[in-house]
Amino acid sequence: MSFHEHLEQVCRSVDGAVACSLMGVDGIEVDTHVADGGAVDVKSLLVEYSGVLRSAKEAAEAHEAGGVAEIAIATDKLLAVVRTVSPEYFMVVALTPDGNFGKARYLLRVTAPKLRSEL
Amino acid sequence: MSFHEHLEQVCRSVDGAVACSLMGVDGIEVDTHVADGGAVDVKSLLVEYSGVLRSAKEAAEAHEAGGVAEIAIATDKLLAVVRTVSPEYFMVVALTPDGNFGKARYLLRVTAPKLRSEL
Repeated sequence: MSFHEHLEQVCRSVDGAVACSLMGVDGIEVDTHVADGGAVDVKSLLVEYSGVLRSAKEAAEAHEAGGVAEIAIATDKLLAVVRTVSPEYFMVVALTPDGNFGKARYLLRVTAPKLRSEL
Repeated sequence: MSFHEHLEQVCRSVDGAVACSLMGVDGIEVDTHVADGGAVDVKSLLVEYSGVLRSAKEAAEAHEAGGVAEIAIATDKLLAVVRTVSPEYFMVVALTPDGNFGKARYLLRVTAPKLRSEL
């Protein structure tokens, strides 16, 4: 399966998913599937969230809490679940606030190793 | 109930909780209950996580995704769940990675309004 097919499959399998993306930790997108952009400019927001991931990684490393495996950020309009794929890449799925958070986390956990093996 | 009693009650009610804190978004602690510090310097890490919350708020506001209600950050050694209490304050509970994430989220959601009404 191509990167895009993996991302599309996550979107199709999670109720409320609006987009799924594979990105570099520098915020540069590798591939994104947008199921339903909705009111928010999801792509731009996910680029900004790469900065949030970098802040969390720096904080965790500085305090010897280990690597950051996952971050979830819930705003009024969008829930984003970020999962580290490798030291250089992460996956993120964006959902509506009433989307299936548990399934999104589960699918990121099982999909991340598949993407890592293809990077 | 005092702030400290609320924080202590969250720690006591969540399996794996190591600390619960009420903080300003500027990273200055109002009150913290530490149940079991473990290997990580939890207090210092939570101060750093206030910076992560600020990054997420700025990103969400810039892209009109609304206010940030909650952030969860999972590292190899610690899971932190952050919940906005008011524009100036947030609560955070830190757990061991195998702690009860669902219960932590639930208790933050019900405790945050109680703290807000006392601020």
